[in-house]
Order: sequence, then structure tokens, then C-alpha cells
Amino acid sequence: MIIAVDGMGGDHAPAEIIAGALESLAVFDDIYIHIYGDEAVMAPYLKEHARLKIIHCTEKIESDDEPVRAVRRKKDASMVRMAQAVKDGEAAACVSAGNTGALVSAGLFIVGRMEGVERPALAPTLPTVDGKGFVMLDVGANVDSKPSQLGQFAVMGSIYAEKVRGVENPRVGLLNIGMEEGKGNELAKAAYDVLSEAPVNFIGNVESRDLLNGIADVVIADGFTGNMVLKTIEGTALAFFSMLKEVYSASLKSKLSAVLVKDNLRGLKKKMDYTEYGGAGLFGLNSPVIKAHGSSNANAILNALRQARTMVQYDVCGTIRETIGKVETK
Amino acid sequence: MIIAVDGMGGDHAPAEIIAGALESLAVFDDIYIHIYGDEAVMAPYLKEHARLKIIHCTEKIESDDEPVRAVRRKKDASMVRMAQAVKDGEAAACVSAGNTGALVSAGLFIVGRMEGVERPALAPTLPTVDGKGFVMLDVGANVDSKPSQLGQFAVMGSIYAEKVRGVENPRVGLLNIGMEEGKGNELAKAAYDVLSEAPVNFIGNVESRDLLNGIADVVIADGFTGNMVLKTIEGTALAFFSMLKEVYSASLKSKLSAVLVKDNLRGLKKKMDYTEYGGAGLFGLNSPVIKAHGSSNANAILNALRQARTMVQYDVCGTIRETIGKVETK
Repeated sequence: MIIAVDGMGGDHAPAEIIAGALESLAVFDDIYIHIYGDEAVMAPYLKEHARLKIIHCTEKIESDDEPVRAVRRKKDASMVRMAQAVKDGEAAACVSAGNTGALVSAGLFIVGRMEGVERPALAPTLPTVDGKGFVMLDVGANVDSKPSQLGQFAVMGSIYAEKVRGVENPRVGLLNIGMEEGKGNELAKAAYDVLSEAPVNFIGNVESRDLLNGIADVVIADGFTGNMVLKTIEGTALAFFSMLKEVYSASLKSKLSAVLVKDNLRGLKKKMDYTEYGGAGLFGLNSPVIKAHGSSNANAILNALRQARTMVQYDVCGTIRETIGKVETK
Repeated sequence: MIIAVDGMGGDHAPAEIIAGALESLAVFDDIYIHIYGDEAVMAPYLKEHARLKIIHCTEKIESDDEPVRAVRRKKDASMVRMAQAVKDGEAAACVSAGNTGALVSAGLFIVGRMEGVERPALAPTLPTVDGKGFVMLDVGANVDSKPSQLGQFAVMGSIYAEKVRGVENPRVGLLNIGMEEGKGNELAKAAYDVLSEAPVNFIGNVESRDLLNGIADVVIADGFTGNMVLKTIEGTALAFFSMLKEVYSASLKSKLSAVLVKDNLRGLKKKMDYTEYGGAGLFGLNSPVIKAHGSSNANAILNALRQARTMVQYDVCGTIRETIGKVETK
């Protein structure tokens, strides 16, 4: 299979993108990678590889570009050409660490929404204390959502969790401010009913307090709420690591302490590092599109490519296409 | 001044409630405390004190009681009698660590909404890395909110931050999924406009990722979003401490490490412990009502009483009453 990669998107592009791509070619012998980007800029980092192809692009989408406009105008941008390759059937899937809004636009306008899907959803995998992780969607492809859209998110997330993450009969929870049925705002209450009828293992409402303890394998929310919760987890984790660092630098005694648990702490940081779980899938499009974290290093890109490959292998999009019609539309 | 206290509400009632009350009488020589509750149950923990009065109540509100019904029916519940004392002018303020929904109901139906205030808001103070903290509201007195209500939350939160927390010209931020004006869902966009016109130091949108770094002194959100973010911070913090505990128990080496930084870590835990900052104020009622955390120990109750006393001393309600009419209603 061919996977198209945006060589220019992300804080550490193109160096880390290319490094990650080369790494994946070493790990998987059944993929070809087409990297889109400025050849001159990428040249210093490139290596010859039989299964690596470079497609030169004269434009790129910047992190502060207005998404819709940029995708429409910068027709030779690496992200746009990459998405077009998927649309044209040249590539089976694509990965970008660039401007999230632009990738969502490119997904919608170029790769195209799957028939029957109302709205795509952005779905990262987040860490849990036991290391198993959970998928949350939507975390920002949309701002407002309808109950039926949440129902579709549940179907897409569940199929992904099962096929790509290997979770048997994934537990699907609705992110809400209380466990009891009937809790929440208007959207949550209506979504509860839709999810109860959807072809998924719906376990009811789940509270954000319990997410990192693995209370569900798939967590459903509207884009505004999902994005808010994702950023809160990120910010709280960052604040903690920064306070922990302060604790350890406080004195000679504490520095000694840090040395003693260095490996364990590194393990903890790794566990909480959700780029270890790959990028965020943009579900509901005709082909797999993966949004790798903006600050992705080579390892994160490798994991995102691993994710894309698995989605193609297990024909996640095909399964979604078959199942999605079974969700009540209202 | 007299402060009414619910002796029966909370996980560690009445022991910790009484202990906290007695502690506050030692710290502040200008307050009287009236504790409401079952005399027989409270007796083992009570001490004689010239400024302590016990009012016997035959009922109590349980943590799983349906709030509105319980407040309406259990007329002799400690929380209800406590609120009634404030309503009747017998007490200047009240504190309860009991059922949050019931306290909101008691606040609304008994103490009463202040004239001009559309909806009350629940406003805890959360920790920041630098120890200064920030106020967030609403975190759950309401589920859905209108833009004008968010405007009023901003006014109430700002007055509280200034008068009780001693913050000069408090920075008020609107919790949103992006910094730029025009971001967010329909409510956020409309609220942005209302806040821009409100008599507060509005600094624009703030992201949940930056809250613990003290990006704002007062953070405004609708009850659903605020509750979601609050619980996410709680859950992430708990997961971290639990993982840190695992790290430290892993081996002899790590146990030694733990001993070396024991004090520093305790300091970190204390910094992140928001009961250090008092309880959550229920703003927008005729008198100060403080919701102490359900798991409050004596120190948390002391801090909640400190908070109530300060609100009365600085006549926070009076100031809110004067200012609230200046917010556009739409």
C-alpha cells in the first residue's frame, strides 16, 4: 500500500517527518511512502529508499493560515497534494502533523466525507493509568454537534477501537457531568437516547474525572466539549510535570532523589505521552486520514504511520461504511 | 456575625465539621457559629464554647437525595434549617459540605436569588502552579446558560476575586477552545460580546490548557463546560498522584527516593489541594452561601468559614447588588 505524507506540516518538519517515514519503511516491509513537500528544504534529511518517493510542492499551509481559505487557494501545498493523492486513489491513506483545521478542511473537501456520514470527527487516543488507553471523539473537527452525529461518532470510534486497537467489544461511554441517565445538557440527554439504540456496547454516561482510569474504551462528546477536555488533560499533565521538576531541582537532596527514580519517571512520562498511541484519526472520510500531533518527533510519525497502515489493513473505512447506516438520524 | 453551619453534610460529618467550626472560633474572635444537626449524633464531638450554639434537627439531606424534592420535603433537615436561618436574618452566611444540588436548591428557594441576578453560579477557587489560584464559574449550579448569565457570572466572580481574594483588577477570561475572537460554539461567541461590554477587566478567550498556569484570575464558562473542566482537572491530578505513588513503591531504590522528597511532594500536594483555598461560593444569592467540598476535613471547613466571614466583612453581596444591573440582558 502507498501512504501519502505531508513533509512540511508540524513543528519539526521536515526533519522528523522524514526520519519517521524512513523508520516506518524499516519496520514495515509492505508499505510505500510518498512524501509531499519542498524538495530543496527536505533534501538534507532525505535518504534513498526503494519504497520512498518524493513529490515536489511549491506551497505549504502555515500553522496560522485560515484553514478553509488556505486549502482552497494553496493548490500546490504539500497537505493539499497529499490529500489529493488519496482522493485520486494513488495513496490508500495519509498522515500530516500540520495545521489541524486545514487537515480537517482537506479531508472534507478533497478526500471527501463518506456517504451516510453526517460529520467527520477527530479522534485521538489518550493514555490511561493501566497503559491501555482510550479513544475520544470528537475533539474539534466540529464545534457544535447533533445527537445523531454523536451516534455516528460512537460507531466509528467503536470500529476503530476494535479493529485497530484490538479491544474486544469496546465499551462506549457518553461524556457527561453525571452518571445517571437524564443528566446533562440538552445535547447530552438526546445523545444518550441515540447511543442507547446504536449498534455499539453503550455503557452509559461517563464522567471526565474517570477517563484516565480507563472507565471506557471509546468516549463520545461534541467537538467543543471534547476539545475542552483534551486540552484540560494536556494542561494539567504539563503543570504537574513542571511542578515535579521544580520539586526535584529544589535541593541537592531532591536532585539525588530524582536520579534514583529517573527511569521510573521516564516510564511515567512515556505512559502519559499520547503520541505513543499514534495520531488522531479523522473518522468519517472516504479513506484514513491521520492528524499527527503538531510537535511530533520521528517516533510519533512512526506511530501515526503504523496507525494508518492498520486502518487500511483492517479496512476500517469499509466497515464504517457498512455500519453507519444503522444509526438513527435525528 | 453569626455563620450558620450544616453539621450533617459531607463525608466526614459531623466530626470534621465540628472540629473545623471550633478551629475557626479560635482563629476569629468576631464570629459566632450556629451548627445545625442531630444533637445526639454530634454530641461526642462537641465542646462547650461561648460563641457556639447547637440547633437540633431531626432530618438530614442524603448525598443521593433528589435535590429539589429533598429541600422541599425535609423541612427539618440541617441544610434546610441552616439556609432558613440566613433567610430569616439570624445568620449572615452559611456553610455546608453536603449534597451540592440540594445546597443550590436551598440557596435558590430559601436564601433566595438576589434581585437582578438571572442565575446563581457555583464558583470554586482552583490552584495554579504559582500558588495564587483562580476562580472558575459556573461549575454546575446550572446546566445550560445564556450569554447574559455568563456576563453576570463575570461580574460576580470579579467582585469576589477583588474583595475576598485580594486580586487587583482581576483578569476575567472566557473559557473557550481557541484564543482568537470569533472562536467557539454559539454560546461562547455570544458571551464574548457580552463580556466585552461588561464592567470587568475582560482579557478575551482563555484555553483550558493554560488555566493552571494562572492565565486568568476569573474564568467564565457555562455550568456544563465548567463542571466538565473541573472534574477533568481533578481526575487528571488524581491519576497523576496515583501513578507517582506507583513509581515510588516500585523498588527499594524508589522508596528511598520518596523519602528524600517527602516534604517537597507534600508541598506539591498541598498546592494542588483546592480545599486549601476554601469552598465554592454560590454567587448571586441574597447572602453568602459556601459549598465546602464533600470530603472536607476540619481544615477545609475552617477555610470555608474564613471565606464566608470575608464575604460578609467586605459586603460582597452588596457590591454585586450594585453592579449587576450594569450587564446587558440578552
